[in-house]
Amino acid sequence: VRLRQVGEFPLIERIARAARRGARDAGVVLGIGDDAALLRARPGEDVAVTTDALVEDVHFRWRSIEPETLGRRALAVNLSDLAAMGARPLGCLFALAAPPALELARLDAVVRGLVAEGRRHACPLVGGNVTRARETSLTITVVGAVARGRALRRDAARPGDRLCVTGVFGAAALERLTAECGRGRRERRVPLPRLAAGAALARLRGAGACIDVSDGLLADLGHLLQASGVDAALEPGQVPRPRGFAAACARLGLDPEALALRGGEDYELLFSVRPGAPGTPALARRLGCPVTEIGRIVPRRGVGAPRAAAAGWTHF
Amino acid sequence: VRLRQVGEFPLIERIARAARRGARDAGVVLGIGDDAALLRARPGEDVAVTTDALVEDVHFRWRSIEPETLGRRALAVNLSDLAAMGARPLGCLFALAAPPALELARLDAVVRGLVAEGRRHACPLVGGNVTRARETSLTITVVGAVARGRALRRDAARPGDRLCVTGVFGAAALERLTAECGRGRRERRVPLPRLAAGAALARLRGAGACIDVSDGLLADLGHLLQASGVDAALEPGQVPRPRGFAAACARLGLDPEALALRGGEDYELLFSVRPGAPGTPALARRLGCPVTEIGRIVPRRGVGAPRAAAAGWTHF
Repeated sequence: VRLRQVGEFPLIERIARAARRGARDAGVVLGIGDDAALLRARPGEDVAVTTDALVEDVHFRWRSIEPETLGRRALAVNLSDLAAMGARPLGCLFALAAPPALELARLDAVVRGLVAEGRRHACPLVGGNVTRARETSLTITVVGAVARGRALRRDAARPGDRLCVTGVFGAAALERLTAECGRGRRERRVPLPRLAAGAALARLRGAGACIDVSDGLLADLGHLLQASGVDAALEPGQVPRPRGFAAACARLGLDPEALALRGGEDYELLFSVRPGAPGTPALARRLGCPVTEIGRIVPRRGVGAPRAAAAGWTHF
Repeated sequence: VRLRQVGEFPLIERIARAARRGARDAGVVLGIGDDAALLRARPGEDVAVTTDALVEDVHFRWRSIEPETLGRRALAVNLSDLAAMGARPLGCLFALAAPPALELARLDAVVRGLVAEGRRHACPLVGGNVTRARETSLTITVVGAVARGRALRRDAARPGDRLCVTGVFGAAALERLTAECGRGRRERRVPLPRLAAGAALARLRGAGACIDVSDGLLADLGHLLQASGVDAALEPGQVPRPRGFAAACARLGLDPEALALRGGEDYELLFSVRPGAPGTPALARRLGCPVTEIGRIVPRRGVGAPRAAAAGWTHF
C-alpha cells in the first residue's frame, strides 16, 4: 500500500492513533487533531523549542537504515538539543513530506519509532503536518520547559571554567564509516539524548556553558567558544573513546584521534563548570553518566593571534 | 550567488541578522544561535504550537509568487492556526530545505517577508534549521500562548450554538484560479491571520468551537462538526462574499457559491457561540472585524440518517 492510496486525513488519523497509544499526558492539554497542540509548563518555567530535519539522500538512505530506527533517530537528535539547554520535554511535532509512492508500511514504522522514542523520554507526539513532496523529509520540532534563568546556554563559558564531556566520542562516526565501507550492517544506532544529565547540570550551582556535540567535538567546541567570546586549552588525549576503539580504527586504517575529535553525531554534552563546582567523580554522580574533564576555558587572545597548538594541547 | 557558495553557518548567521532586525522581544528570552530558543508565556497561560510546510511545486511555484510574499504567506497561514486557538504568538521557527543551486537573493527575500510578517504580528523569528534538499520547502512552526482553559477548540460546538464566520469567502480561490488561467499577475495575496479576533473570542463568555478555514468552508466545517459530534444547519446564501464577486466569477464562468463554500485558503475563522452570546453586531465590535451568522449547530442524527439538504439549507 502506498501513501497515495490513503489520503491526507486518514493518514493524519493513522498517525494520531499511533500517537495516542504512546501518549504520556503530563504536559499535554490537547494533542493531535486541532489547529494547534496545547502544552503546559510548570510555574516559573520558560519554553524551549528547537527543530531539525532529516532529508532522504542527505541525512539518510532507506536502504541503509531501518524505518523504525529512522523515526527514533529523528526525535532523539532533537531531544539532544533540549538536553543541551537543560530542558525537559513537553511534546513534539512531526512534519512529514513524502512522495505519494512511499510505502505506508515504511511510514508506519517511522511513526512507531518516533512514538516509542517519545515514550522513552516522556515526549509525546502532539501534532504535525503531512504533505506531498518529491523526496521524503522528516522535520521534528520539540517543545520543552526549563526553570527560568537556569537554561544552559552556549554563551556562558568563562576563563577558568573546567571543560567537560559526558560519555565517549567516535563510536557513531566509526559505525557510519564501517557501514559505508560495506563491512557493517544497516545503521542501528539511536543516540541517547542526555536529558537527565542536562537537567541535572541546569540545577547545578557552578554550571557554565553547554552544547550538544552533533557536528563533531572540535566543531561544536568552536561554536561554544565563539558564543562565549573565549578560547579553550584542550587536551585531545583526554577525550574519552569507546572500549576497543583504537583496535577497531586500526582494522579500517582510520585515525582514532581524528575520528573522536571530528567524527560527529556523538550527541554527548560538552559543557563548562566554574572552578568551584564539584570534582569530576561528584559531577558524574550528579549527572548520572560518565563525565570526563578534557581541558580548560582560557581568555580569548587578540584577533590575529596564532592558533598554534602547544605540546599536547590544541588551542582555538 | 547560490546557496552552495555561502555554506551552512554563514547562511544561519545571515538569517539570524535579518531576524534580529525584526525582533520584538516581549516573549523571547533567547533567539537564534543556541541549541533551542527560549520563550516566556505569562503566568496561567498554556503553550500553543503548530507547524505547516510549503513545498515547491506542491504549494507554490517560484514563477507565480514573489519570494517575499511566499515568506509572508508561510508565516501567515501558521498564525491563522494560532488565531483559531485564540492564542497570541510568542515566536516562530523556520526550517528551510533547499537545493544548493537556489539563488541567495530568493532566500533573502523569503526571510525578509517572514520577518516582516512576524513584526506585523509580534511573532519574531527565534530559530530553525537549514538543510540541503532536491526541492525547496519552508516548514514554519509557531509557538503561542493562551490563558488556561480559554483556548478555542474544534470539539466545543453544542446544539443550539449560532454558527458564525469572520470576513468574506472565495476571494483567495478566485485570485488563484484567475492566475492559473493566465489572466492575473503573480500571486500577491497574504492572508490576514485573525489573531485579534481569535484572542477576543477566547475571552468571550459564550464562545463555542473555532477552526480556521484553509481547506474550504464546507471541508473545515466538516472537521469542526466531526470533532464536536454535532451537525449543522447551514444557510449557504448567508456566506459572505467579497464585493463584485458574482460579476468576477461570471466573467470567468465560475460558480460563485461553489467558490465561496469550497474554494479554500480564506483563512477566516469559523466559530460557534452559545445562544446567550452577544448578537452579531456586538460580536463584530468585540472581535474587531466583520462577523456573519451563517447557520446553527444541531444535534447529530443517527448513523445512516440521510444528509439531504432542506430547501436553502445544507445538512452535514
